[in-house]
Amino acid sequence: MQAELLSVGTELLLGETLDTNAAYLAEKLSELGISVYHKTTVGDNAERLVAALRISLARADVVLATGGLGPTDDDITAAAIAQVAGVNLVEDEATAEKIRSFARQASFAHQHGSGLLDKLLKQARVPQRAEVIPNPIGTAPGFILTCDSKAVIALPGVPAEMKAMAEQTVLPYLARRAAPEGSAVIVSRVLRLAGIGESQTEAEIADLVQTQTNPTIAPLARTHEVHLRITARAADPAAAEEMIAPVEAEIRRRLGDHVYGVDGEALEAVVGRMLRQAGLTLAVAESCTGGLIGHRLTNVPGSSDYFLGSLVTYSNEAKVAVLKVPADTIQQHGAVSAETARAMAEGVREVCGADLGISVTGIAGPTGGTPTKPVGLTYVGLAGAGETAAEEHRLRGNRSMVKERAAQTALYLVYRTLRDRKPAEVAK
Amino acid sequence: MQAELLSVGTELLLGETLDTNAAYLAEKLSELGISVYHKTTVGDNAERLVAALRISLARADVVLATGGLGPTDDDITAAAIAQVAGVNLVEDEATAEKIRSFARQASFAHQHGSGLLDKLLKQARVPQRAEVIPNPIGTAPGFILTCDSKAVIALPGVPAEMKAMAEQTVLPYLARRAAPEGSAVIVSRVLRLAGIGESQTEAEIADLVQTQTNPTIAPLARTHEVHLRITARAADPAAAEEMIAPVEAEIRRRLGDHVYGVDGEALEAVVGRMLRQAGLTLAVAESCTGGLIGHRLTNVPGSSDYFLGSLVTYSNEAKVAVLKVPADTIQQHGAVSAETARAMAEGVREVCGADLGISVTGIAGPTGGTPTKPVGLTYVGLAGAGETAAEEHRLRGNRSMVKERAAQTALYLVYRTLRDRKPAEVAK
Repeated sequence: MQAELLSVGTELLLGETLDTNAAYLAEKLSELGISVYHKTTVGDNAERLVAALRISLARADVVLATGGLGPTDDDITAAAIAQVAGVNLVEDEATAEKIRSFARQASFAHQHGSGLLDKLLKQARVPQRAEVIPNPIGTAPGFILTCDSKAVIALPGVPAEMKAMAEQTVLPYLARRAAPEGSAVIVSRVLRLAGIGESQTEAEIADLVQTQTNPTIAPLARTHEVHLRITARAADPAAAEEMIAPVEAEIRRRLGDHVYGVDGEALEAVVGRMLRQAGLTLAVAESCTGGLIGHRLTNVPGSSDYFLGSLVTYSNEAKVAVLKVPADTIQQHGAVSAETARAMAEGVREVCGADLGISVTGIAGPTGGTPTKPVGLTYVGLAGAGETAAEEHRLRGNRSMVKERAAQTALYLVYRTLRDRKPAEVAK
Repeated sequence: MQAELLSVGTELLLGETLDTNAAYLAEKLSELGISVYHKTTVGDNAERLVAALRISLARADVVLATGGLGPTDDDITAAAIAQVAGVNLVEDEATAEKIRSFARQASFAHQHGSGLLDKLLKQARVPQRAEVIPNPIGTAPGFILTCDSKAVIALPGVPAEMKAMAEQTVLPYLARRAAPEGSAVIVSRVLRLAGIGESQTEAEIADLVQTQTNPTIAPLARTHEVHLRITARAADPAAAEEMIAPVEAEIRRRLGDHVYGVDGEALEAVVGRMLRQAGLTLAVAESCTGGLIGHRLTNVPGSSDYFLGSLVTYSNEAKVAVLKVPADTIQQHGAVSAETARAMAEGVREVCGADLGISVTGIAGPTGGTPTKPVGLTYVGLAGAGETAAEEHRLRGNRSMVKERAAQTALYLVYRTLRDRKPAEVAK
């Protein structure tokens, strides 16, 4: 099965917005074994959108369009698809009712008046015969419209809405649609690695990557970690899993120390699961990461079970006042030092009454570096029942990359501690 | 003049790599007043690349292709362009000599052996009649090939090489080519709005959007804010600015209360600039946002001048221990209440010794909501010299969106306070 991606939006042609939607969908389709040979972007122009839809439909079995489903006049995707399919737009009752119920909230009428309701109701108009895809987050629904043997799928351009709808409705639909044709299934497993770079990862498994054809192994570099995707094609899922197992085992034999998790589970979720299982609580002292570690930990639903707080002490005064770091320590060794990292970890553990305290202090740049303490120099600390640990790291990249890598480095230290030590050794 | 962007590379169709080249070129072309109506991505497949080139050349005056100029067998862009133009590939002497001289370096032979030289020399083969674009960084040259009245431009996919060659050769060439025809430039200004949704924004200026053709007005929805892009086409930049001015003034007359900034400056940068100008410091008390406000504030280089810290108190105990929120307040009103928000803002201002303390407490979901306190209920507080403020908001979306919108709501409160009050009224 072949699919094409069609991104709709003038802002994508002006270079203001990176097309992360198309990259996300391309990756998901590839995991389903659906070939994507073309990706096209057009602006909010009816004539060109209709022409682009026709070109894509002539080449592919399925066209996935994102964007242009909003309430404004330049949102024209639904009308363009209806025109290409030769059908009318009709109001979807359920969507219209959802929008009306949303508008009945007292605060809505108070804030927006009645004119807005009409605009929002435009979003309920979908091509006749289309199967509506509910939007669990916003008001714009998506839809699937089949024309002869082909299908056009429309999703909103807001990434969170697009992703939620893709996961709930579109990807399962495409998996079903792709299955009967090939009678082969594709199963992927992603191994997530921390504490190692892409080049070193590739060097360790170069022979496997080159010789393997089924399963294939693909290294994928993320900003702060490396993923290895193992993909097997087989008659059924069990057979595919059986083919993946020995490859995964061999990779783990070589790189297992760095493999912290699989598939969609991020490091903050793995750490959270381990903390919950061990019955331990965590508190964080941040400096250069500015709150990013707390932000990541609290992206995990239910994190209040083990995450007590993160004290972002950006100024030296706050390190002293809030975390009880001795002013002497900062004066003697500097705010970016192993000693300060240790004192921060111990301080936050004490102040928040946590089992584990972790800390980060570093120089994110672009300014603030010196010859002896350059931009990227970062210390992470971990305080538990035993001796307080501190590690020095030299992280590469611009300000935002150093922040991301510093946060990852701290979470990876918690991960290794929880993996290698018994809860009783860690807890107070 | 119309141009199209053609990105070549299978990795772009697998979602592993974001197409930053196309975004860069799109922005530069827009600045030159060259319209880009289509952006296409194809893989490293000769047949499909040739077909895509033909489609693009039929629509546009200039096609800019990036990628596929490397030394490996799947680098096929030069051959495909030659095929479409009906010419042969010929070796460019200067490029071949540059590659040979590069290969004569001792380290090259030592590391790569002689096989690689032949591979690299493939890069010297360009379509007959093409004008070679030197690559100041790598070995792969680009080229400009004119066919009848049209032009195909090929650049390597490595972003640093592509950018250097675009700036040195391609953009000046396109500026010359575009000038006699249109003799027009395009100038855009983006107004950034907070505290208002896309639909309401659109409703307030619907008449302008519909009647304006030059300048045009385009509303763009971001996760937590709305942008309005005003784009004018004129003979020169000054004339374009003159056309934008009255439109911007009219939008500001209607929505000025929400326009916090222009172009690339995010709310955290605007707030930072205002704090620096006023000589004020800021401390943050976060709960449901988990550190996101501190993370955003510290994404701005130099934020240590005014940002003292953010105390993320996720547990009630931490709110009491760290922020000195009276346990009674939490017990009587709940952790998510105006009273707790006020106490958090006052507490963090006191603890960090800041001029301004802001706070957020809310229910990010998916669990934790009740009929009286549903998911999305959020309070933001602001403590300064005068009375401590607290606002109630009901934010929509999933966990991650509630977090993002709560952070924006808090920063917007700081923005309004700094805008509407004199520093002396705000500071202690």
